[in-house]
Amino acid sequence: MRKNVQVLIARLPEGKLRAEDYEVGETAVPEIGEGQVLVETQAFAITAGTRAGLQGSASYAGAPKVGDVMGSAAAVGRVISSRNDAIPEGVNVSAPTGWQQYSVHDGADVDLIPSDHDPIDHLGPLGINGLTAYFGLHEVGRPEPGDTFLVSAAAGSVGHLVGQMARIRKSRVVGVTGSEAKGKVLVEDLGFDAWVNHRDPDFRKALKAATPSGVDVYFDNTGGMILGSALFRMNTGGRIACCGVVSQYDTDSPEPGPKGIPGLLVNKCITMQGFLVFQFESRYAEAREEIRGWLGSGDLRCLTDEVHGLEAAPEAFVDILRGGNVGTRIVRLDG
Amino acid sequence: MRKNVQVLIARLPEGKLRAEDYEVGETAVPEIGEGQVLVETQAFAITAGTRAGLQGSASYAGAPKVGDVMGSAAAVGRVISSRNDAIPEGVNVSAPTGWQQYSVHDGADVDLIPSDHDPIDHLGPLGINGLTAYFGLHEVGRPEPGDTFLVSAAAGSVGHLVGQMARIRKSRVVGVTGSEAKGKVLVEDLGFDAWVNHRDPDFRKALKAATPSGVDVYFDNTGGMILGSALFRMNTGGRIACCGVVSQYDTDSPEPGPKGIPGLLVNKCITMQGFLVFQFESRYAEAREEIRGWLGSGDLRCLTDEVHGLEAAPEAFVDILRGGNVGTRIVRLDG
Repeated sequence: MRKNVQVLIARLPEGKLRAEDYEVGETAVPEIGEGQVLVETQAFAITAGTRAGLQGSASYAGAPKVGDVMGSAAAVGRVISSRNDAIPEGVNVSAPTGWQQYSVHDGADVDLIPSDHDPIDHLGPLGINGLTAYFGLHEVGRPEPGDTFLVSAAAGSVGHLVGQMARIRKSRVVGVTGSEAKGKVLVEDLGFDAWVNHRDPDFRKALKAATPSGVDVYFDNTGGMILGSALFRMNTGGRIACCGVVSQYDTDSPEPGPKGIPGLLVNKCITMQGFLVFQFESRYAEAREEIRGWLGSGDLRCLTDEVHGLEAAPEAFVDILRGGNVGTRIVRLDG
Repeated sequence: MRKNVQVLIARLPEGKLRAEDYEVGETAVPEIGEGQVLVETQAFAITAGTRAGLQGSASYAGAPKVGDVMGSAAAVGRVISSRNDAIPEGVNVSAPTGWQQYSVHDGADVDLIPSDHDPIDHLGPLGINGLTAYFGLHEVGRPEPGDTFLVSAAAGSVGHLVGQMARIRKSRVVGVTGSEAKGKVLVEDLGFDAWVNHRDPDFRKALKAATPSGVDVYFDNTGGMILGSALFRMNTGGRIACCGVVSQYDTDSPEPGPKGIPGLLVNKCITMQGFLVFQFESRYAEAREEIRGWLGSGDLRCLTDEVHGLEAAPEAFVDILRGGNVGTRIVRLDG
């Protein structure tokens, strides 16, 4: 009997997440029923937002329990057996496999990956991260050419893509990140105009210097101190696209909101808009087409940061919560 | 020589504002120059937002200094002498007179009041308060018929008007206020569907009970605890119109923002939009026309809460900061 290796939630984290909050288990590969498919996981992305679900209250990341297989918002695999006519054996799919080798799905949560696509692109620019960047930019942030576009967690899975997309739309792009190495990648490899280190004790001063005309659109992946500082740089009529709250995920006592809420919003006529990519599901195909064009022309680059093997996933997750990744952190199971 | 009685800022408040932070002074009535007019104040409104300016940092309420005549955002008076052809002697005008009997203006800051309007209406429904309610509702909050519309400081100068306007637009209207007497006025006299007392120790529970279908649009005049509680009642895709922050004005150390910022905004795809009425200045005339229609038909009622004489203004201001007013607090100088 084939075994299914899984990473399970051993306990809900207290304080910061630790690799020991997970354990590796084995079970039998499940049988599929009528209409179902069995998927062998090739790779999954780990994104910081998944940490929110582990705070014990329901969020868009769900509310996993002890003993559950750890969930994955973005995963790709191959269909190795099928009792569903619409999903033939042998095709590549994206599906919420979780952190395990084999998973069973009915059709509803499986998307076929066209045969001319690299499945790994569906963890990055053509997957949830890329689509989040795309719709957050075009539907929520909506910068005009020449606007100053600020993004936090700028070297992260969404951040490095949305910054490039804003550059394609002719914004002046400033990224906030946490190390010299990541800052250099943003400016030298991805065409950002400037970067600021949020670990700089003079962060507010550095942010001001990097945004001499203020900020028209702030794409917020972090909340917390960076949001609080960005608020003071916003131009009148500016927009904040609220995409994620990475500064508040790895804790069980999230901080209060920044001081300028709502006073600064009123005085500067600022709009803050939270969004989830799922709002735009009916338009994924058109977005993917445009993103593929940018990938083909070289205007958009996707950075991936890969680790190998299910056993490496817990530490890889802990690491991204302290900002260890450059681009999309991917766990590969396919060698 | 005629005297000009004035209320001056004696000191910037420490902690809560006190009547002793003002002093009454006398000076000569000023002479007017070419292009100027002399206005005799008939009445002015006191609004809580003016308190923000006294916190020592610039806001839309300006940054007054010790020794300045106290400012008024909404005042009406009569032109008693004119060297400006566009503004004849004898007409009623709205103008930022400040808390004094006589003031000099050039044309730019003076609006003529049509002779068939009651000037007092220009402190309420046809003035800054009414226009703020109108544009905040129609351009920012934008409730659909049947939506639940929540408003804080609901018996205040803007709140009681915007709640009625939302009722006219067929929302279910719930007001947050601070006393049984004010709550009764909202429901019995102004047609609100329900009210909640923010001083109720079980406020969150009461708010939940009053909004069984959640909140689609929250018109926030207060910030602070009420905003924090309202966030948890917002429906997915809801909108918060940020109009004022009365909970944070009467202090020199404003609180941090509510905990759900920005996490709840993301999870529920909520938009928070700060606005100032001045953004919509080009459309004041059309708004006034519609508001006059509602006043004429009796659909909209304006509550005023009057005191008499300049000397009464400081205590009247202190009183509205603790929620003492029902409707628009007006200081009348015309007997």
